[in-house]
Amino acid sequence: MNAPDKLATLLSLTREPFPASRKSYLQGSRSDLRVPMREVTLTNGETVSLYDTSGPYTEPGVAIDVRRGLPSVRTPWLDERADTEVYAGRLHQALDDGAKHEDREAERIEQLRLDAAALQRPPRRARAGANVTQMHYARRGIVTPEMEYVALRENGKREWMREYLGDAPREQRLRGNPMGAQIPAIVTPEFVRDEVARGRAIIPANINHPEVEPMAIGRNFLVKINANIGNSAVTSSIEEEVEKLVWAIRWGADNVMDLSTGRNIHTTRDWILRNSPVPIGTVPIYQALEKVGGVAEDLTWAIFRDTLIEQAEQGVDYFTIHAGVRLPFIHLTADRRTGIVSRGGSIMAKWCISHHRESFIYEHFEDICDIMKAYDVSFSLGDGLRPGSAADANDEAQFAELRTLGELTQVAWKHDVQTMIEGPGHVPMHMIQANMDEQLKHCHEAPFYTLGPLTIDIAPGYDHIASAIGAAMIGWFGTAMLCYVTPKEHLGLPDREDVKQGIVAYKIAAHAADVAKGHPGARARDDALSKARFEFRWMDQFNLSLDPDTARDFHDETLPKDASKVAHFCSMCGPKFCSMKITQEVRDYAAQRGVSEAQALGAGMAEKSSQFRQAGGEIYIPLAVDKG
Amino acid sequence: MNAPDKLATLLSLTREPFPASRKSYLQGSRSDLRVPMREVTLTNGETVSLYDTSGPYTEPGVAIDVRRGLPSVRTPWLDERADTEVYAGRLHQALDDGAKHEDREAERIEQLRLDAAALQRPPRRARAGANVTQMHYARRGIVTPEMEYVALRENGKREWMREYLGDAPREQRLRGNPMGAQIPAIVTPEFVRDEVARGRAIIPANINHPEVEPMAIGRNFLVKINANIGNSAVTSSIEEEVEKLVWAIRWGADNVMDLSTGRNIHTTRDWILRNSPVPIGTVPIYQALEKVGGVAEDLTWAIFRDTLIEQAEQGVDYFTIHAGVRLPFIHLTADRRTGIVSRGGSIMAKWCISHHRESFIYEHFEDICDIMKAYDVSFSLGDGLRPGSAADANDEAQFAELRTLGELTQVAWKHDVQTMIEGPGHVPMHMIQANMDEQLKHCHEAPFYTLGPLTIDIAPGYDHIASAIGAAMIGWFGTAMLCYVTPKEHLGLPDREDVKQGIVAYKIAAHAADVAKGHPGARARDDALSKARFEFRWMDQFNLSLDPDTARDFHDETLPKDASKVAHFCSMCGPKFCSMKITQEVRDYAAQRGVSEAQALGAGMAEKSSQFRQAGGEIYIPLAVDKG
Repeated sequence: MNAPDKLATLLSLTREPFPASRKSYLQGSRSDLRVPMREVTLTNGETVSLYDTSGPYTEPGVAIDVRRGLPSVRTPWLDERADTEVYAGRLHQALDDGAKHEDREAERIEQLRLDAAALQRPPRRARAGANVTQMHYARRGIVTPEMEYVALRENGKREWMREYLGDAPREQRLRGNPMGAQIPAIVTPEFVRDEVARGRAIIPANINHPEVEPMAIGRNFLVKINANIGNSAVTSSIEEEVEKLVWAIRWGADNVMDLSTGRNIHTTRDWILRNSPVPIGTVPIYQALEKVGGVAEDLTWAIFRDTLIEQAEQGVDYFTIHAGVRLPFIHLTADRRTGIVSRGGSIMAKWCISHHRESFIYEHFEDICDIMKAYDVSFSLGDGLRPGSAADANDEAQFAELRTLGELTQVAWKHDVQTMIEGPGHVPMHMIQANMDEQLKHCHEAPFYTLGPLTIDIAPGYDHIASAIGAAMIGWFGTAMLCYVTPKEHLGLPDREDVKQGIVAYKIAAHAADVAKGHPGARARDDALSKARFEFRWMDQFNLSLDPDTARDFHDETLPKDASKVAHFCSMCGPKFCSMKITQEVRDYAAQRGVSEAQALGAGMAEKSSQFRQAGGEIYIPLAVDKG
Repeated sequence: MNAPDKLATLLSLTREPFPASRKSYLQGSRSDLRVPMREVTLTNGETVSLYDTSGPYTEPGVAIDVRRGLPSVRTPWLDERADTEVYAGRLHQALDDGAKHEDREAERIEQLRLDAAALQRPPRRARAGANVTQMHYARRGIVTPEMEYVALRENGKREWMREYLGDAPREQRLRGNPMGAQIPAIVTPEFVRDEVARGRAIIPANINHPEVEPMAIGRNFLVKINANIGNSAVTSSIEEEVEKLVWAIRWGADNVMDLSTGRNIHTTRDWILRNSPVPIGTVPIYQALEKVGGVAEDLTWAIFRDTLIEQAEQGVDYFTIHAGVRLPFIHLTADRRTGIVSRGGSIMAKWCISHHRESFIYEHFEDICDIMKAYDVSFSLGDGLRPGSAADANDEAQFAELRTLGELTQVAWKHDVQTMIEGPGHVPMHMIQANMDEQLKHCHEAPFYTLGPLTIDIAPGYDHIASAIGAAMIGWFGTAMLCYVTPKEHLGLPDREDVKQGIVAYKIAAHAADVAKGHPGARARDDALSKARFEFRWMDQFNLSLDPDTARDFHDETLPKDASKVAHFCSMCGPKFCSMKITQEVRDYAAQRGVSEAQALGAGMAEKSSQFRQAGGEIYIPLAVDKG
């Protein structure tokens, strides 16, 4: 079948709501401020509502046409601020899509296709002298709708959580250890404003991405995850890219980076942005390199600047900028085990060496800030010198760059430009905390955004696991967003299943961090699932899990019958004997007696004894094994 | 095809040596002391030798007949000690294999099959008054062949490791943080003896398991992993059990627990033990429960004792004994979120409640010690009250039991019985270290052996990942052995692929812990693989990884051609541009100049510049995407 049909088929799959789930909304202070949540209805009548990144795609009522894009929820908010202007925008060039000058025919076709693209529209920018960043508003004491949206979203529905956790955890042991984070009991819009004003959180939301459902990245908010997608001349189509996006946010990607290269990247980006409810990040140097035929030393500030404006006009929410790869640092990588492994970093290193000049990105950093604040593009200051192996972790090259990123953070903040800092990479467990400490020390609490880190080098094919270990730890220590790693890392291109595996592994890491930090309510979902498990509500256990489909499929491999979904046993212990059942018997007994359970246990022994004997005829039919 | 044929087919798969690998041996002080290693030959001529748990199965020359079992490497050592006697052994009963008394025909058939079993042989036990535990020898200053074997095995071939690491890591940052462990530069037989004498390590090696290749479990040795296997009346055959064992040790299981239940468990255990080069553990209460028809309250000391002797005679190397589930602790579980989730723990809880009496296992603990020391069966003191959910982690029920296990450890040591302590379970990250600290404090540095722990409850289908995070952390903190969790945990029976997934996840966790602890040489394999990666030696990268098959398959999905196995690029960056290649250019350039790389970088810039320009015609053909 042709590409559109194929896409339609894939989308029909990814648009299916999760089992027993429906979209609900938290109503904000204005009618057009509605924060989506996923409500899971349990078989005992309870409702659990969960943070939802999947956008309108999981709402059956909404008609989706990827050629028209998603509704622009933020447009009224932008209009009301009255500090932006719509303008013609930069003239699109065939080169933006990778067409070569000599390639006349391709250029003509590109142009035709682009002219026809319904998604094209004139961009906005800040009016002369205006600064339209969320940080700028925050510092002027303005609480934007984006900030209120984030506050509602971070809290979720606290009502059901209290049923499990109470207003505060019963015991100290369950309160978590925030490791220096200052997480409030309730996130208020004012708290969000203050965090953004301090630079401790960012809300990536380009004024040319009105489709975005605002979210925050910061140490005092829920830990977020990023998934990378990207086209490939040889392996995928533009339409497949949009489907990859929808697939990624279905499984919980809070942000997506479009790392496309080669042909059609400009158009690919248009389609992704117009159809994305989550912030989109890019690495502009990749496209700039395309424009100079892949010859790093031919890069110029003019070409790079033009690319930043091109992407800012399209609505990219954050740029990875490798401004810390400075000429004086490059020789520090010479005796590394694996040198420079960041593509952006190596591009700039090649440029610096070939010209024996300081990085033009570093030298033009304030010029870049001027572009960022005209569109509210956030900085993701890239770690171009991150370690590519355990042997290179925490070395001078890495930390010299980190200190520079700290200096640049203050420059960006001088312009009220939102900023986060990228981190490694490959780091053994004993060196992970030092990464967080150094980042906090030198980068003034700007959000940290790490790739993994991978705790060992010998797990190709399983690097999503080797890195989930490091990601969970650094997330607990204070990292605000975790960039996922798929099983294909170091080996090849992630396919649809690899993307899902990477995302689920990182949802585990991020949630483990939220629970350890003691984020209010984070553990409520665990309690709800464990309660369902204990009460043999199998469907509820599946439906509350990160991947209900897989949980149910695995269970059904051994016990396919629907009856077993309500049976008070599982395949591990068999029907006649179950450890959880015994505890329930103890508890029921205590309840009958109407006295404290502890007393009942003592007083009731004799009676209990005879009860058990009556059941003595049971024959224990074990079906399988369980640990200890 | 019939079972034997099926087994033969499966075995032929699992007997295939790993790619570019051959079995080699470290020769000990006596001709019959030869420690197996796996030698991987790299394409650059280097040889890397790795710890090998796979036994004779991966040596093509060795003829294997599962009906005859493996060679008894330890028999001469046992004979020389001259402190054991061969005796008739306990009379086998049909009930041992789960045949019911009323089931005459089944009983007859069982008996016939058992009489015919070539694997049956008279057991050994300590001569009257003798104590044959490794701890007993160690405390008398005797270095046994088992101890020397362990020393050679723990060191591995240090020669090749030095090529990467030098005698000591260049920099402090790479030396690891042992978190209180005292890991020597070289493990001597005397060090092993001392660790065993102190009780800080155990060598599980029943005198009736002469086929075992000795290994150590202790905080100052490499972190080990355990895989659980077990039959199931409905899902597998005895022969499949043996194949499961071979499959588990192929992927790196250091120990295997046979958690079989139901029919044929006695015979299954015989076959597993006679064919296992790794220590085998069991939970004897499971079989004892079979013998009383699954009615926990009908258990008696006589039945339990008889089962311990039955299994000790077969050669089981360690018993999980839930002696810490005491009557006074049971009520502490009543208001838990998930009560008692350990099967052994709940069996004993049911017994205590129904009789309103103290646990017969606790009361007869010293009688059990007498059995253990007559066969050198090690204790694995079970945590029957471990938490089954994050909400129950580190509660009083758990820690009350842990303190009791500490008391019992000293009782066991009074009898020179080797002992390790089992740990949880479900524990959020911020509570993991407290588990290790409490265990060290109350259990006198007896080896800790934990199940995970799982850091969150919401990942059914992915609990091998949710628990690998906790396992890696607690392994770093000092846990000696990690019991694996498979993707099927909480949902169903692990199949062949689940077992592999669980083992690889736990090899990652254990290796991450070894690297973080700074175990000498642990990081050498990472360096060798990263060097291969950096030098585009693809086959070496695959062959040094934990799962060469998967690494190669993933790579080949994108670049199947054999040519690309030596190509200086990968699918992530494409043929004309590679970040690692650039670093190599920088390094080569510096080398040519014959001056320090740092100087060369400065001095050589201008020249480098022109060189790069010559290559300017290159067109960058990107094939895919990579993170920033």
